Amino acid sequence: MADSLDHLNQRLLRFARERDWEQFHSPKNLAMALAGECGELLEHFQWLTEEQSSTLAPEKRRAVAHELADILIYLIRLSERLGVDLIAASDEKIAINEARYPAHKVQGDARRASEYDD
Amino acid sequence: MADSLDHLNQRLLRFARERDWEQFHSPKNLAMALAGECGELLEHFQWLTEEQSSTLAPEKRRAVAHELADILIYLIRLSERLGVDLIAASDEKIAINEARYPAHKVQGDARRASEYDD
Amino acid sequence: MADSLDHLNQRLLRFARERDWEQFHSPKNLAMALAGECGELLEHFQWLTEEQSSTLAPEKRRAVAHELADILIYLIRLSERLGVDLIAASDEKIAINEARYPAHKVQGDARRASEYDD
Amino acid sequence: MADSLDHLNQRLLRFARERDWEQFHSPKNLAMALAGECGELLEHFQWLTEEQSSTLAPEKRRAVAHELADILIYLIRLSERLGVDLIAASDEKIAINEARYPAHKVQGDARRASEYDD
Repeated sequence: MADSLDHLNQRLLRFARERDWEQFHSPKNLAMALAGECGELLEHFQWLTEEQSSTLAPEKRRAVAHELADILIYLIRLSERLGVDLIAASDEKIAINEARYPAHKVQGDARRASEYDD
Repeated sequence: MADSLDHLNQRLLRFARERDWEQFHSPKNLAMALAGECGELLEHFQWLTEEQSSTLAPEKRRAVAHELADILIYLIRLSERLGVDLIAASDEKIAINEARYPAHKVQGDARRASEYDD
Repeated sequence: MADSLDHLNQRLLRFARERDWEQFHSPKNLAMALAGECGELLEHFQWLTEEQSSTLAPEKRRAVAHELADILIYLIRLSERLGVDLIAASDEKIAINEARYPAHKVQGDARRASEYDD
Repeated sequence: MADSLDHLNQRLLRFARERDWEQFHSPKNLAMALAGECGELLEHFQWLTEEQSSTLAPEKRRAVAHELADILIYLIRLSERLGVDLIAASDEKIAINEARYPAHKVQGDARRASEYDD
């Protein structure tokens, strides 16, 4: 794992072990916890316009930063439990997306791949 | 941003710009997209037992790795748009959790902070 | 349960039993499945403006209707497993919200209850 | 809409109008709010075993009932805004599922439709 992600991974392993919490950290449970944090992220934006979401007050931005952190934290735990290299998987996925959405074909048009007429 | 996250961030900026997709990438929209990917992650685990979720077949594990990548991808885009340092925010959040859940108090007990009797 | 919800509940019980699927329908799993469907709902809206979301093409509206149905289906199964009266709980929750957000105090202002200055 | 759902729908319309909140209730925003509530539902179950999720203490069950209510509330608002008949859509979806997962083929086996060998 990358140095900074690995640093976080080590802190999180220690955190879970000190508290005897690894027993709760099945991938199934970690996926649920991650989704729970996603819900908290959404709640910050649900009544805002897109414009307002781009110009958050400092205090709100700080709260959102902590929700993003919560999500990254569970992503790292899940990757550790499943033996997944998050960075490598992300590079692969971007390559897949580059092929699935060729720039010339999807200029300024954000439908799903299956919704484009060939 | 850390080198590997910064590498992904640069690829993602280029990806969005080549396709004139930045117009869709308000933080509000990115948060929705991230949550959409969380839903896809959950679907892989919803009927599995915790045990089964820890022993995925290679093909399933690969699919899950791509869902984790999708989530990281949106996390990085969101952080870029909001000017959030994901790693720093995560270090802060772990410190907050260490204080909120002192090891001696929560051994083997995974309730929410507010559910512990003092 | 209300007549129409009860009708759906009976169809869903029969559906699960005919397939020997009740074994997978712990409340934990059903909650995950419900959240998975929420993710699918979000994906229909993530790149749309609020305006576009109010004026869906018929085919898109039909797809969204089926996502809403999927969510209701899991809500009904969860209520059945937990012995919850969905309608009564909803009436209670609306009453709680009416008290928590008095009309005179929150006119045209959609922050969370805790964010209002007293 | 069915009598009880229609009753809730009327209460919710009145609730939103009294507070001048309809302006925030685009389908996009309502979908986000619904997903936010799903996240709260998941948080109740994330560290529980499937067994524990089936035997909730009364106070926890009551809290979960209110989360289910929150989700139904947003489902009803969304249906109202989109002109969707929730009950009819659910009956349709169950019929689609009955065809997609024939009982003889999927006995005791809960993979997704696309994962079954023909």
